[in-house]
Amino acid sequence: MRNIKLITEYDGTDFYGWQRQSTLRSVQQSLEDAIFTLTGENVNLNGSSRTDGGVHAMGHVSNFLTASTIPAERFAIAMNALLPDDVVVKGSFEMPEDFHARFGTKSKTYRYRICNTNFPSALERNRSCYIRLPLDLEAMKNAANCLVGEHDFKAFMAVGGTAKTTIRKMYEVDLWKEGEVVVFQIKGSGFLYNMVRIIVGTLIEVGMGKLPPDIVTKMIEVGDRRIGGRTVPPQGLYLYEVEY
Amino acid sequence: MRNIKLITEYDGTDFYGWQRQSTLRSVQQSLEDAIFTLTGENVNLNGSSRTDGGVHAMGHVSNFLTASTIPAERFAIAMNALLPDDVVVKGSFEMPEDFHARFGTKSKTYRYRICNTNFPSALERNRSCYIRLPLDLEAMKNAANCLVGEHDFKAFMAVGGTAKTTIRKMYEVDLWKEGEVVVFQIKGSGFLYNMVRIIVGTLIEVGMGKLPPDIVTKMIEVGDRRIGGRTVPPQGLYLYEVEY
Repeated sequence: MRNIKLITEYDGTDFYGWQRQSTLRSVQQSLEDAIFTLTGENVNLNGSSRTDGGVHAMGHVSNFLTASTIPAERFAIAMNALLPDDVVVKGSFEMPEDFHARFGTKSKTYRYRICNTNFPSALERNRSCYIRLPLDLEAMKNAANCLVGEHDFKAFMAVGGTAKTTIRKMYEVDLWKEGEVVVFQIKGSGFLYNMVRIIVGTLIEVGMGKLPPDIVTKMIEVGDRRIGGRTVPPQGLYLYEVEY
Repeated sequence: MRNIKLITEYDGTDFYGWQRQSTLRSVQQSLEDAIFTLTGENVNLNGSSRTDGGVHAMGHVSNFLTASTIPAERFAIAMNALLPDDVVVKGSFEMPEDFHARFGTKSKTYRYRICNTNFPSALERNRSCYIRLPLDLEAMKNAANCLVGEHDFKAFMAVGGTAKTTIRKMYEVDLWKEGEVVVFQIKGSGFLYNMVRIIVGTLIEVGMGKLPPDIVTKMIEVGDRRIGGRTVPPQGLYLYEVEY
């Protein structure tokens, strides 16, 4: 069997998430359907991340085993001809047989977009989270810096998270302005359930002055989700890159 | 009667264009419906531009007369509570009685976005036009410069245009890269039917080497639409700003 890796971009707006669910539209199902049409095989895609409904991806990674003789790089082109236009395979590569998209990830990078304007934006409505209040970016950057490093991120996990350990390592927690959009970039060894959305929600409340600048340090120390900020909505979140 | 000006942003994807049409979804109809709910008046909105289906706007301008006593700046907030989320009123202002959004415009600025990547983008699919071939931006900029100034733009008008004169003045025809997106910005005294999309389509074929760099000058001299490039599709076009 050959092992094929796919790099996928998708607009999460009209998907119920990455993972296949019986009757709901998922990215995994769309990709597996296209592979079935090409190869006649019912493959089981391993995904790097099970993104929620509404969450987007620029660089989602998945892999599958196949007996097909289609050249690896042709999968992207052939699948794109079959896929709906809100999911695109940006690359397909033959990998060693032990490559697994879910296990063995070295780091993942997420982005989150906040539209910080007087009125909500029609064009950004499914691409960002709308915040009207002015944000103190300096205060947010200072709080963001406290997240970098290896910590117990228990307070940054939503109810329903099932991780064996809540210790993760953050390599980068950065934010900057692009026009009227605030972009967050968060790179870590791995993420707990809703972790990025809780980090961003907490930093935003620091930026609004609703939470003190040292809240991040407190959350890490105390390990209590309830003292943090709200979970921001899915439409601003992008899985940007996965490294192995 | 009071004269109210609206500045509107919309995502053109699910509209058949700005202008009201009997049964098809239009931006004008959505705005007029919201005004009717607020004031009980069947107003007739004057729009600065009748954008085609799929075309977006960041700064569309319109105006209407009303006997209502609602403060001008409240219209934006009240209308946004009633409007579908792909159209947003970004500002509402009381104007002198002779202000008319369609007549008396000093200039209009359009933007056009080209996604210039190896694979089409899922996230950009309704926000840009996809071009796979590499583009020679320098050649395109040189050709773009030949459009600036007052010229007869007959060759840049689609069949069906009904302008009395085809002479227009271009103040700016610029283009630059933002990541993998090429952004065009075109500011002029006014535009003929499909003019921006023909300008961009022609510049792109110059960038691909399919048309010679002096094609723009020839089109202006000869006045023949058929020697220019193709009309690029609507989803990359944005009405950016209108000045009075």
